[in-house]
Amino acid sequence: MLHEVPSKLDIVTTHERIRPYINRTPVLSSDKINEICGAEVFFKCENLQKIGAFKARGGINAALSLEKDEVKNGVCTHSSGNHAQAVALAAKMLGVKAYIVMPNNAPKPKVNGVIGLGAELIFCEPTLEARENGVKEIIEKTGAKFIHPFDNYDVIAGQATASKELLEEYPDLDAILAPVGGGGLLSGTGLSAKYFCKKAKVYAGEPEGAADAVLSFKSGKVEKAPYIKTIADGLLTNLSEKTLGIIKDTVTDILLVNDDEIMAALKLVFENLKIIIEPSCAVPLAALIKNKELFKNQQVGIILSGGNVDLSKLSFT
Amino acid sequence: MLHEVPSKLDIVTTHERIRPYINRTPVLSSDKINEICGAEVFFKCENLQKIGAFKARGGINAALSLEKDEVKNGVCTHSSGNHAQAVALAAKMLGVKAYIVMPNNAPKPKVNGVIGLGAELIFCEPTLEARENGVKEIIEKTGAKFIHPFDNYDVIAGQATASKELLEEYPDLDAILAPVGGGGLLSGTGLSAKYFCKKAKVYAGEPEGAADAVLSFKSGKVEKAPYIKTIADGLLTNLSEKTLGIIKDTVTDILLVNDDEIMAALKLVFENLKIIIEPSCAVPLAALIKNKELFKNQQVGIILSGGNVDLSKLSFT
Repeated sequence: MLHEVPSKLDIVTTHERIRPYINRTPVLSSDKINEICGAEVFFKCENLQKIGAFKARGGINAALSLEKDEVKNGVCTHSSGNHAQAVALAAKMLGVKAYIVMPNNAPKPKVNGVIGLGAELIFCEPTLEARENGVKEIIEKTGAKFIHPFDNYDVIAGQATASKELLEEYPDLDAILAPVGGGGLLSGTGLSAKYFCKKAKVYAGEPEGAADAVLSFKSGKVEKAPYIKTIADGLLTNLSEKTLGIIKDTVTDILLVNDDEIMAALKLVFENLKIIIEPSCAVPLAALIKNKELFKNQQVGIILSGGNVDLSKLSFT
Repeated sequence: MLHEVPSKLDIVTTHERIRPYINRTPVLSSDKINEICGAEVFFKCENLQKIGAFKARGGINAALSLEKDEVKNGVCTHSSGNHAQAVALAAKMLGVKAYIVMPNNAPKPKVNGVIGLGAELIFCEPTLEARENGVKEIIEKTGAKFIHPFDNYDVIAGQATASKELLEEYPDLDAILAPVGGGGLLSGTGLSAKYFCKKAKVYAGEPEGAADAVLSFKSGKVEKAPYIKTIADGLLTNLSEKTLGIIKDTVTDILLVNDDEIMAALKLVFENLKIIIEPSCAVPLAALIKNKELFKNQQVGIILSGGNVDLSKLSFT
């Protein structure tokens, strides 16, 4: 278990540890999207990861990094979806119980995913307070070990392996874009760019309707979003001390986009890459398209974070 | 240009020829789908191929196999969609004109794909006769070289490279399933299984509402479908002498499925593999699920043929 910012060696070790349990996800590209962006864009498809999201990397790594004795009463977490599935999958692999506190408005495919993995589900109101209280109760009752969705260096080291893989295949990237919610993926991406590539600058895309990270990045301390209203349901959380610390050190900028821009980018991906992504996952491409001049003629990597979307709620008419 | 059934060496040479111009498509799998099928299923994702379909392989190979002098007046074809895009792409690569005769009910994304590649489009009634007459006129007027969608050994050799790649990564497959329309992909799959794998049996999935291949397979001569009514718009054509000859020699059976089974399989792929496929592409998975006992505990490869679907016409409610 890591107690400080993951080193290069930590991330290499993490990758070896989780490699047998995760998918080496493909990197896709599209001539049409390149043309629209005025850049060469390489999409690291974590929507094709186990459980349909990069979160499998961090969840599995955190669970495998615990001592046997620590997990004997199971693991628990709170999550609106993808981290929940990651912890449920990790628990299934370890043969221990998983307790998941989920907001009662979590998307159906994510809820079904957790149930399908055999975890015990506890619904709560969709507030951070209700989620944290729910987890506290579970820990008191069961002795389960808490795995935080992002304020956890083992989770961050796990998420870092996505861009490590991308950089193994495309070592000359000028930039890497990732979405930012709690900052686990973004801080991991920042670390991998710093350790495994001298050149690539890291940017985040963030929804205007959950714009906490951009404020925190400017002020240097964890801030709340002025308001929450976005289709990108995976990016609602604030940063934590751990993720903000790494982001300040490794990220170049955080770029805001609105829901229309997010949905236009999502549609581009569906139609041209022929893959399914969730709205949160479209945020970095939306940010790239909105800031084309920043990335002109560059080689740009985008981490596509996940594909757990309720298709019945999307309309393409 | 090949004048007889492609040999092992022909397919190896073809693969080398087209390799720089095509995607090495990923192979995906899903624990959930494996569970449902009672088999280990490996999906070769040709929906993630250039132009969103395996047809890029055959179209590019056929165009590259022609002499410079033969293509100086351009290339032409008739197709309801994916082969049209393949020929348009090949022409663009060669810097020559492409003339495409398309039925006026072709799916919008396929029409747009052809236009986006700069081909000249000629619409016709949705009958084979109208399509063939359209092409005849074009040839007379322009001197363009016709590339048949499947009754062409260079096209067949190109399509064969999809399962060649699959077998390079999964040499122990017990079976490979592909959809069958005109039989270009199926005959190519049969040849690759025969040449590159001693063990794998090849099966086709065919829609009940376009059941010509199953009849032809039984009678040994090219038959028409008793009726045409299926959502699998890419599989409406009859076999040809060339494709039937190879299919008789290399295919174990042709399995029929109805539209409900096709749509259920399509939904499974969308939800679990997080990729977009067109209805025709879901036919082999539907056939596998309908005939589970045939494939029980086996390693099964499925060629996912394409992803050019009009998303506004799909409903997931």
